[in-house]
Amino acid sequence: MNRLASFTLAAAGAALCLPAIAQFAKKEDAIKYRQSAMFIQNQHVARLGAMASGRAPYDAAAAVANAQVVAEISKLPWAGFAPGTEGGKAKPEIWKEQPKFKEFNEKLMAETSKLPAAAGNLDTLKAAMASVGDTCKSCHDTFRKD
Amino acid sequence: MNRLASFTLAAAGAALCLPAIAQFAKKEDAIKYRQSAMFIQNQHVARLGAMASGRAPYDAAAAVANAQVVAEISKLPWAGFAPGTEGGKAKPEIWKEQPKFKEFNEKLMAETSKLPAAAGNLDTLKAAMASVGDTCKSCHDTFRKD
Repeated sequence: MNRLASFTLAAAGAALCLPAIAQFAKKEDAIKYRQSAMFIQNQHVARLGAMASGRAPYDAAAAVANAQVVAEISKLPWAGFAPGTEGGKAKPEIWKEQPKFKEFNEKLMAETSKLPAAAGNLDTLKAAMASVGDTCKSCHDTFRKD
Repeated sequence: MNRLASFTLAAAGAALCLPAIAQFAKKEDAIKYRQSAMFIQNQHVARLGAMASGRAPYDAAAAVANAQVVAEISKLPWAGFAPGTEGGKAKPEIWKEQPKFKEFNEKLMAETSKLPAAAGNLDTLKAAMASVGDTCKSCHDTFRKD
């Protein structure tokens, strides 16, 4: 059964307008939330990366399905970086350089939003994945501990 | 800033039509994937539960935003219960009683799909959350270890 259901989802980013840490019962929940969202995101990015690099056979339907998950799950982690949630692999610079961090967030969401349309063709998938990969790397190099 | 963006997302359930465990590099990834999705889901369900029970003030916009995340993230965990991924808090019965487990999955997705429309009003939110809660409990009582 192909459950390629499309649906609408409000970004957890909506919650960004609420009192920050108030969303989470404790700091550890915020850290686990962002790590969970990024783990899910990475699972789907890895499948796309395998196809883009030729390590896995290209399958247009699977690529589009994975791309859609990446496009949308990439909107979730940011709510987990609320003030007062320093920890995990996140460098403290995130909370000292909020405009720069936000710029990376917005850039990733912009790049991943292009993935679903690009994923239907291997060449466009490769190009889109290169941009997504660069964006991931830029932010990780700057704001993630080794 | 209110980032109540609506967007479309293909359910990871689409991947259910692919060779099961092949989606994950290793069994532990599948377990972490389903646990991550359920953790995110639970964070948003808890916020709705707090409003429905009066432990938190009712905020229609926040309720709808959280409901939309629940409605959609609830489509993700099931891909993580692929054959050969026994472990975590999942009872082995999941893999022995697949039709029953699948029925619970479908029931949860059906109930959570009603949440966004219900969340705009406190009374309808309460009713919808009661159904969601019953569905969570039925499955956990049957298929989750204590």
